[in-house]
Amino acid sequence: MFLKNQWYVAAWAHEIGRAPLGRRIAGEPIVFYRTEKGQPVAFEDRCPHRLAPLSLGTVIGDNLRCGYHGASYGPDGTCTHVPGNPPPKGARVRRYPLVEKWGWTWIWLGVPERSDEALLPDFHWQSEPGWAPVGGTLHFEAHYQLLIDNLLDLSHEAFLHANTIGNAAVADVPAQTTSEGNHVRVTRLMQDCAPPPLFVKARGFTSNIDRLQDLLFTPPCYITITVRATPAGTNDLSQALQWQVLNALTPETDTTTHYFWGLPRQFLIEDREMDAMLEAAITRTFIEDQAMLEAQQVVTQERSLDERSLLTLADAGPTRARGVIARLMREENAEVRQ
Amino acid sequence: MFLKNQWYVAAWAHEIGRAPLGRRIAGEPIVFYRTEKGQPVAFEDRCPHRLAPLSLGTVIGDNLRCGYHGASYGPDGTCTHVPGNPPPKGARVRRYPLVEKWGWTWIWLGVPERSDEALLPDFHWQSEPGWAPVGGTLHFEAHYQLLIDNLLDLSHEAFLHANTIGNAAVADVPAQTTSEGNHVRVTRLMQDCAPPPLFVKARGFTSNIDRLQDLLFTPPCYITITVRATPAGTNDLSQALQWQVLNALTPETDTTTHYFWGLPRQFLIEDREMDAMLEAAITRTFIEDQAMLEAQQVVTQERSLDERSLLTLADAGPTRARGVIARLMREENAEVRQ
Amino acid sequence: MFLKNQWYVAAWAHEIGRAPLGRRIAGEPIVFYRTEKGQPVAFEDRCPHRLAPLSLGTVIGDNLRCGYHGASYGPDGTCTHVPGNPPPKGARVRRYPLVEKWGWTWIWLGVPERSDEALLPDFHWQSEPGWAPVGGTLHFEAHYQLLIDNLLDLSHEAFLHANTIGNAAVADVPAQTTSEGNHVRVTRLMQDCAPPPLFVKARGFTSNIDRLQDLLFTPPCYITITVRATPAGTNDLSQALQWQVLNALTPETDTTTHYFWGLPRQFLIEDREMDAMLEAAITRTFIEDQAMLEAQQVVTQERSLDERSLLTLADAGPTRARGVIARLMREENAEVRQ
Repeated sequence: MFLKNQWYVAAWAHEIGRAPLGRRIAGEPIVFYRTEKGQPVAFEDRCPHRLAPLSLGTVIGDNLRCGYHGASYGPDGTCTHVPGNPPPKGARVRRYPLVEKWGWTWIWLGVPERSDEALLPDFHWQSEPGWAPVGGTLHFEAHYQLLIDNLLDLSHEAFLHANTIGNAAVADVPAQTTSEGNHVRVTRLMQDCAPPPLFVKARGFTSNIDRLQDLLFTPPCYITITVRATPAGTNDLSQALQWQVLNALTPETDTTTHYFWGLPRQFLIEDREMDAMLEAAITRTFIEDQAMLEAQQVVTQERSLDERSLLTLADAGPTRARGVIARLMREENAEVRQ
Repeated sequence: MFLKNQWYVAAWAHEIGRAPLGRRIAGEPIVFYRTEKGQPVAFEDRCPHRLAPLSLGTVIGDNLRCGYHGASYGPDGTCTHVPGNPPPKGARVRRYPLVEKWGWTWIWLGVPERSDEALLPDFHWQSEPGWAPVGGTLHFEAHYQLLIDNLLDLSHEAFLHANTIGNAAVADVPAQTTSEGNHVRVTRLMQDCAPPPLFVKARGFTSNIDRLQDLLFTPPCYITITVRATPAGTNDLSQALQWQVLNALTPETDTTTHYFWGLPRQFLIEDREMDAMLEAAITRTFIEDQAMLEAQQVVTQERSLDERSLLTLADAGPTRARGVIARLMREENAEVRQ
Repeated sequence: MFLKNQWYVAAWAHEIGRAPLGRRIAGEPIVFYRTEKGQPVAFEDRCPHRLAPLSLGTVIGDNLRCGYHGASYGPDGTCTHVPGNPPPKGARVRRYPLVEKWGWTWIWLGVPERSDEALLPDFHWQSEPGWAPVGGTLHFEAHYQLLIDNLLDLSHEAFLHANTIGNAAVADVPAQTTSEGNHVRVTRLMQDCAPPPLFVKARGFTSNIDRLQDLLFTPPCYITITVRATPAGTNDLSQALQWQVLNALTPETDTTTHYFWGLPRQFLIEDREMDAMLEAAITRTFIEDQAMLEAQQVVTQERSLDERSLLTLADAGPTRARGVIARLMREENAEVRQ
């Protein structure tokens, strides 16, 4: 079960074009395409005639035509034509609200009337002047909440990512965890610590640094991480490594996740070689997570996470986020039953 | 569940030889072989000794010997020898009635006493003088009734097979659907229409044609299609494209189908290049169906076809055929309970 | 379900080293490693922190450190360190008793206090002077009891292994089956019979032989086979082929088995080419079993072995062994409930 009255990142905007794109979001098969004027459209990926996937169809003008028997649907989901039949009255395919913002296409799976753009989480850095964005997509064979757990306890960087973003401090220095409504914030300030290999490579640190991680969880599946590192004791922003790690962890099924990530940075923003280096290094880092989380997923299909018997201080963030999701799920289910 | 008191096409006759052939038919694992005199034999593909598949065994004379511990079975299913044991009394493997006709080997899965050859559906064109047959086999990851639905609503040719047998008329011109006992007939006469690409290639039409499709469904899984095309308004059979599309859609499991097809034609019957061209074109056409039906199968494992909300005039044929199968199934189940 | 208060072969001793080895034994995921002094250690392969597999971790000194968040465990399973946390009190991972003997590492899955080394089955030939051992491991997609059935009815050699160790006599000559406590013994003496191809290749027999097979089943999954062949009527041990076929059939899951085998012989024990020839021939032979048993496994997932209707004299051994296992299972379950 997934929260439905929420915005989910469905795709990078550039992935959606004139050829239909089929993708499962939070358990629901969806087909995406773009009208002649460039408006993105999302339908249930099942033709109401014989349930064939509309993603095997063809976009004709602004309409999507089923590839099986040719039933056509306008951008609002109305069936506009069925070959060999009188004009269809009232037939339609379910349409989903979409918004395009910050380079991503967001979908609303719940009650359409509540699809308020103001409810989008904040990812403004991705299209902000003064920030150089890189990003990518990964597909994890793991439940999306395992990805949230992973990102809200960054102590794992010391072990899993020792070759890129990990240093000892991230495991040894305690973090502060606070809640703000549905948000969970985890902050860790590591003073006078050794710089991780990727920080050295990106910013040329030659001695210890002060390192800040400021994480914000926004339900159902968003984590933004404000990262800042400066030479120890200097607080010299001109030499700083400053970036945002932006994570949209869209559930695909109960056991798989679309992982959309961005890494806008505030230094050397014209440097395309830096873009390429960082994209490769972050991809490598997240593939390290992927191996661990997919193995963890296999274990949790056999044993419940409730059976774990060792709790740590750093569990505070993941535990609170799970609490928020559980509460929102109860609220949504209660609403449905009313 | 499948109808059992029915003939199913199990194989092309030439597929069954002296080496055992294992194949699942309507959920039941079967092993086929041929005696020294060429009589085809079908057994349950499980040795009654330790349930090893007999299809891993060896044919010795007229007997099939299990490849595991050497128990041997005569063509009537009687166990004739068990190494190191006294002559077996009464041991046997289940044998199934077979008939060979029109190039196919047919199996009867139900009560053997009712396996009347007169109940075979009519596929005489396949071995009739004056007809040149081509044919083949495909394996679909789709329920056999999706294949029946597909063939009884040929309006899909306009969209799925636009490069071979599709033209616009097949979707635009309504068909007549009638029932005759357990048979369903769907007839579509398309006058003065553009010839489909394969018709042009096969018969050289240079202008519009009159095109006839006359479909006959026979339960549990047979559809014969009489096809005739002549230059528009001429009814000139000397220039006609005339063939039968013969379809035997043998269920393998609940989600897979053996698709045996034949295409005997009445023109250029000595032309072996025409054979090769048609075999390739029809195979390509049916592989287009395969992609669509396998996608549809995936959807229908999640949602029932009963949820479809757009019904078309061309659904009449598929709907009636489903009704016939449902009724025969109820009758067969009622009999079993008596 | 599997017997737990039993020793199972988990690995060849040389497989366990300083890098963690993950392997499932009788349904339980286990991680193995070796301390600095070479002591083997086995833990449940789930970190109690977040259930990540410890087999993805690192051995540091004598401890195993989880690869996810760095929790460390000493050889007795005690959690020794959690980064960023006070010393853990009482946290631990489940540890399993191990014994190393005769080249194998044995694991006890049940009540640790009962892991008596005296309960090991006898495989002394594997490290006995005067015996030349070869051996290997195979992975079967079949329930371990199908492997027991296979080995306790060697009449199958006549059909499945005709190119290596099979001759007609093994199927035609009856065996004697006796029980001794939890053991089952099957003895077959074949006098004046043709030598199997591998016997000729290994020992150069030029005429008929007297062949002995003396099988001993020890629960839960051990079969040792004493094999002796001498020129017919001579009983001349100087020309004898004498070897032990040692089989440890460790269940992995309900449908898969780790098959550890050894073949110590008493002839030409300095001959390394003989080692290589025999290892290849026995591997080939067991792969013939694998194909048959994996096919049989597929059938038995659909039909119970209880449905078999042809019983043979040679079934006595497999039937008694199944009886022993069923009784031990009932006893173990009864104990658990007390």
